[in-house]
Amino acid sequence: MERILLSHGGGGKDTAELIREIFMEYLSNPILERFEDSASLTVGGKLAFTTDSFTVSPPFFKGGDIGKLAVAGTVNDLAVSGAEPLYISVAFIIEEGFGIDDLKKILKSMSWELEKNGVLAVAGDTKVVPKGQADGIFITTSGIGRIVYDRISASSLEEGDLIIVSGTVGDHGAVILAHREGLDIDINSDCSSVWDMIKRVLREDVEIHAMRDPTRGGIAQVLNEWAEMSSVLIEIWEEKIPVKEGVIGLCDLFGFEPYHLANEGMVVMAVKERDAERVLEILKSHPMGRNASIIGRVVSKGKRGVVVKTPYGTGRILHPPEGELLPRIC
Amino acid sequence: MERILLSHGGGGKDTAELIREIFMEYLSNPILERFEDSASLTVGGKLAFTTDSFTVSPPFFKGGDIGKLAVAGTVNDLAVSGAEPLYISVAFIIEEGFGIDDLKKILKSMSWELEKNGVLAVAGDTKVVPKGQADGIFITTSGIGRIVYDRISASSLEEGDLIIVSGTVGDHGAVILAHREGLDIDINSDCSSVWDMIKRVLREDVEIHAMRDPTRGGIAQVLNEWAEMSSVLIEIWEEKIPVKEGVIGLCDLFGFEPYHLANEGMVVMAVKERDAERVLEILKSHPMGRNASIIGRVVSKGKRGVVVKTPYGTGRILHPPEGELLPRIC
Repeated sequence: MERILLSHGGGGKDTAELIREIFMEYLSNPILERFEDSASLTVGGKLAFTTDSFTVSPPFFKGGDIGKLAVAGTVNDLAVSGAEPLYISVAFIIEEGFGIDDLKKILKSMSWELEKNGVLAVAGDTKVVPKGQADGIFITTSGIGRIVYDRISASSLEEGDLIIVSGTVGDHGAVILAHREGLDIDINSDCSSVWDMIKRVLREDVEIHAMRDPTRGGIAQVLNEWAEMSSVLIEIWEEKIPVKEGVIGLCDLFGFEPYHLANEGMVVMAVKERDAERVLEILKSHPMGRNASIIGRVVSKGKRGVVVKTPYGTGRILHPPEGELLPRIC
Repeated sequence: MERILLSHGGGGKDTAELIREIFMEYLSNPILERFEDSASLTVGGKLAFTTDSFTVSPPFFKGGDIGKLAVAGTVNDLAVSGAEPLYISVAFIIEEGFGIDDLKKILKSMSWELEKNGVLAVAGDTKVVPKGQADGIFITTSGIGRIVYDRISASSLEEGDLIIVSGTVGDHGAVILAHREGLDIDINSDCSSVWDMIKRVLREDVEIHAMRDPTRGGIAQVLNEWAEMSSVLIEIWEEKIPVKEGVIGLCDLFGFEPYHLANEGMVVMAVKERDAERVLEILKSHPMGRNASIIGRVVSKGKRGVVVKTPYGTGRILHPPEGELLPRIC
């Protein structure tokens, strides 16, 4: 087997061979090995359920690949919902002719990212479409988690809450942009699962009102959604927002706003003021949270919007991104 | 809005507009309306979890469309696992330029199929890829159900079990083939959810050993998998297998085996002999099961394989399909 053939998606002998020889080598576990139409699971209490399709181009990028991203993306959606990620389903749409070696690299990343989180891939599907009817590989993951902290909601921001980011802003978007433009920049995508970091925060006695991983649309999108859903005005302080120099450079070059660029391994939180320093400390003690920073505050109830304040005291409105400048970043 | 733009997949304002004005019109429910990163659910007991990507071409076909198929396909995977379908996630990958009217037709079908089953769409995602990087629309659904009958397994067939199909064989595959070849045949795809029919069987005191919906690879694939997993020889009786005349005609024309063609609203079961007539009766009393038939029997333990017997007493081995003659049927 060197390349994916249409018959690998036919549901017959070749599909079985692909599953047993390639997929199972990386994703195997007792539930998946039963080869039934559904996985049978037991999850006590309240569960979280989420889905995302991944179409990122290029599929391999500095700091990750579509496989790592597909697992981390879904794990992160569970984590920011206050849920311990448990099970994932993985559905592949592969273009005829896709290299088996590339597929193996992708599966290896998935396997590693699953293991890191103690998550099992328990259900899967593979479709192969003829050449020219898809671009390389698309992966859709859905995740099930056990809710361990159930007070997080986009509608729960309160006046006085502090806004915290767990790391530098826009890294993933900048890396994809650089790849597309053939530029070699010294930044890796932040693509990674945040659960290991987030669980340390959730098990403390702290009050988190909202939490999101800012993917498409960046922190601008998340903060504007929160402002809208909670009817609040959020002020963020430009000098407190960690952005890598390379990201700023790229943004200058292409006219992007760093706050519009995606992350894939970073979280934004709105935290009750009295707990913010404690949360910051926990984040900073984790390798992924070294650049964590308190970047702003909910300043009033009733007015909706996001304002960026400069150190000189001037302010500008931070709009959510419009149009689509960079498709297929995730 | 007339056509899907790249910005509809950007995660910003246009995505929000697409979700609120188009998707929510058809799929709305209180859980989805929370617009959080994950849905929060409570499912008591053992749950079933499954996923499938749908890439069917053409997306509209006689008897259904990709939306109906994406819901029915996942509902059916839960149903044949003995699970009551409860929740579904829906992830769209749409090609730039796809018509909004077509999208609405697809969503309408999904909505109708969900409602029929009392299933809620609780999580979703939309990605838009530039023109030429996908073909029209791909939909990945994942489903969660509550297991109400937990004795079904591909490894549980026993000598003496009778094999039952709930309807005519190969209808969906034949319809897709006819569309591709520009032929107008008088058959509809059987594409439909089987839960309403199956639940009537499961609530009776009958012993079902195995159950599958024969999609890719048809009944030949399912029966061969069962023979392999349970180490049994299955004999099926040609004259008892219901196949529509139009399907036989198409198969003759293109050199297909009807037992290799897909269904999308039919089930195959292996049932304890003493319960088979009762199961047949229940199936036949349902509008979807009018053509149900006992088509064969597990004749011996230890030998693996599937044999088709003709009325004249001759037999031939029914192999699983090889290669891929008809890609993108689901």
